Amino acid sequence: MVAIAVEETALSADRLKGEVARTTFQILLLASAASRGEHLDARIDHASPQWQAGIPRPDLRRVSQPIGPVLVFAASNFPFAFSVAGGDTASALAAGCPVIVKTHPGHPRLSSEVADLVREALLGAGAPDGVFETIAGLDAGIAALRNDSIGAAAFTGSFRAGRALFDIAQSRRVPIPFYGELGSVNPVFVLPDAAKSHADEIVRGLVSSFTASAGQLCTKPGAVVVPEGSEVMRMLRQVELPTGLVLLNPAITDGFRRRLAQILSQDGVQVLAGLPAGDHDAPAAVILRVSASDLADRDWISEECFGPVTVIVEYEDARQLVSIADAFDGQLAVGVYGTDSDRGIAQDILPRLRARAGRLVWNSWPTGVSVTSAQQHGGPYPSSTSLVTSVGTSALARFVRPVAYQDFPAWLLPPELDEENSLGIERRVDGTVTPRHEALGKESKERKR
Amino acid sequence: MVAIAVEETALSADRLKGEVARTTFQILLLASAASRGEHLDARIDHASPQWQAGIPRPDLRRVSQPIGPVLVFAASNFPFAFSVAGGDTASALAAGCPVIVKTHPGHPRLSSEVADLVREALLGAGAPDGVFETIAGLDAGIAALRNDSIGAAAFTGSFRAGRALFDIAQSRRVPIPFYGELGSVNPVFVLPDAAKSHADEIVRGLVSSFTASAGQLCTKPGAVVVPEGSEVMRMLRQVELPTGLVLLNPAITDGFRRRLAQILSQDGVQVLAGLPAGDHDAPAAVILRVSASDLADRDWISEECFGPVTVIVEYEDARQLVSIADAFDGQLAVGVYGTDSDRGIAQDILPRLRARAGRLVWNSWPTGVSVTSAQQHGGPYPSSTSLVTSVGTSALARFVRPVAYQDFPAWLLPPELDEENSLGIERRVDGTVTPRHEALGKESKERKR
Repeated sequence: MVAIAVEETALSADRLKGEVARTTFQILLLASAASRGEHLDARIDHASPQWQAGIPRPDLRRVSQPIGPVLVFAASNFPFAFSVAGGDTASALAAGCPVIVKTHPGHPRLSSEVADLVREALLGAGAPDGVFETIAGLDAGIAALRNDSIGAAAFTGSFRAGRALFDIAQSRRVPIPFYGELGSVNPVFVLPDAAKSHADEIVRGLVSSFTASAGQLCTKPGAVVVPEGSEVMRMLRQVELPTGLVLLNPAITDGFRRRLAQILSQDGVQVLAGLPAGDHDAPAAVILRVSASDLADRDWISEECFGPVTVIVEYEDARQLVSIADAFDGQLAVGVYGTDSDRGIAQDILPRLRARAGRLVWNSWPTGVSVTSAQQHGGPYPSSTSLVTSVGTSALARFVRPVAYQDFPAWLLPPELDEENSLGIERRVDGTVTPRHEALGKESKERKR
Repeated sequence: MVAIAVEETALSADRLKGEVARTTFQILLLASAASRGEHLDARIDHASPQWQAGIPRPDLRRVSQPIGPVLVFAASNFPFAFSVAGGDTASALAAGCPVIVKTHPGHPRLSSEVADLVREALLGAGAPDGVFETIAGLDAGIAALRNDSIGAAAFTGSFRAGRALFDIAQSRRVPIPFYGELGSVNPVFVLPDAAKSHADEIVRGLVSSFTASAGQLCTKPGAVVVPEGSEVMRMLRQVELPTGLVLLNPAITDGFRRRLAQILSQDGVQVLAGLPAGDHDAPAAVILRVSASDLADRDWISEECFGPVTVIVEYEDARQLVSIADAFDGQLAVGVYGTDSDRGIAQDILPRLRARAGRLVWNSWPTGVSVTSAQQHGGPYPSSTSLVTSVGTSALARFVRPVAYQDFPAWLLPPELDEENSLGIERRVDGTVTPRHEALGKESKERKR
């Protein structure tokens, strides 16, 4: 499958092998979260004769249930991890929802191979036939999104396509949640002392981060805010950058060249290192530069350029950083490079950065999104169309809906809400959270050994 | 204030006194949930050298933060509990968001009095000036909803108004969450054995539930499914119902008469008890009747009639119940009256009822929504425009957005995520939930005594 993916996407075999491992890992992690009931938010409030200003409280129990069939729009740039068997599919299935994947036209043979594998695995595990299907083509995707039986949709891709699909989902007779991960610039702020004391680490890290996968990552640092005349600036002018890069497909190559030309036509934008893509048959990585004062009142910096480019925003004075932060829209991630000596300015800008980010990264780069319980991959609009995450165990909760049971007899309650907690899941009982039953939680015991 | 509310809404002083107690109770309950951090979903994943297929995991910590200024559209029918200082306002403030309330024109003097009280309380507690404001008039409400600085909106009211406002919120340049609680029929299914053995309790309960507050409750049972020829049917024909009811305002009185006339014009609909509202200066409570077979392929039963009326749907055979259940759209609540002898049919219809309800009620009526941790007041569209609840402690989570911190130094982390849990809040650490610190949780200790 990696060989097919190399052919269809031009991504490297090493990168794709790592992506397969990540895809398997996230399926297993989501399975484990589902089995401890993390997404169910099960709650039990026992009946109480005196509750609300002397009025009795009935027995109330609540648990989330699958939202219904989920439509997944596969991404181009992660043919395994955000495609047919990617995080959206895995979290919807783990939450108990049937899945229809609208495959990405960039890797049709791989999509078909992976789909066969998923179907086989589901049948082998006893899932009913039809729990998983794929469709191809934008028209089919839109028709499915408009279909009454679809309960939610998930999407990873461009701002333009994402917003158009969001609008369709919200204007249905019955609107449905549309979990879109759209574009992002992911600016990184290099504070004055870090630019002095960690210049080498910063320059090497930046080049590696913005050129990884030829810059085709939604968390690529597309803007880096650097002090004027710093060691970082001096070193950036001298870096060598990769050339002859092959992007995912001709449409993405064209889009990259077009957007790069737009940025180069902005007042004050110069080439700092590398060769602008338009000069070659295949794109080359390029670092552009603009001064913070040339950026005032301009909004082009907030629009993503998908591909191997980053823009250095040079500032004269750390007091400019607050207004530079305000120039950015909602972002998947925002980075800060700082030291203890940068404490004052770090504390000043943090509230501005937090207001526009899903994830804040300290002394590292936004690429490389770890799949964990605390992960948040999803930021304020326009980086996402919802407030939730598509990576990490919280991704499960996108595909369920809570239902409360009032005064139900034991024989009619779902097992998640029985008195003895026979499933051993996490629950909130009379207001207090209780972890998974150790007695029943085989997995957690095994992990401790 | 109760005296003003009686004048402005025609609701009874007793009902309004109870509502004041409920309003105070829910403010205190939300404060308690906020202080234990229930809505923050704080998560800590410590750095790990071996995590995702051999790749190290960074230190990742996530906590939710206020979503920004919240616009609340007050309801007419709960001048305290769903108005200026109601659940939406309380949960937005408790989550840390400024609030602008668009007051309801049905109780302007009360709104002004309550607003003064809220402002005074907030200033007394040290909140910054401007954290709470009110506006009046639909045009002002729509302008606020379109304003870029609003982060979310909450609404309780009619389907028509709710959908129109939802559409505005979703078509903004930056769409925002719109938490709308719209209308609902809240059907109650009386199973065969219950109709025999509990007829007296059912008839008394129904009359009390559908005429409470002159039927102006969003959880009023607007349809009751009853076996033909049962003791319940016999008793219903003989009940005495209240007359000379005064509704909240002339627009609601007109709407009630109009919708009632529409229902009376449907094939097979008859008056079972009471006097249709059109015959009198003031409306009277009325029970209508239709046979299940006359209901086939009709969708009028799914549209709410706000006011003192309920429709009895008479069925010949319990096997009809599944298709009757399918006749209903998404509902805030669905009730079932049954006994152990009704077990088979109860199990058969439960999946259909669960698929279309936010709350399922056993041997009781949907009115009277207890404010608790496990409550779910919000069901599938069209009963709500979101999947969340506006009543109970989960209401807090509507007004926050998660942010992750990767590899942050201790001095820059928010206190919710510090290593020692200095705030003593609930957190999920390395995948496992931990209850609020007992050492620091004064409240929970006091509750145990």
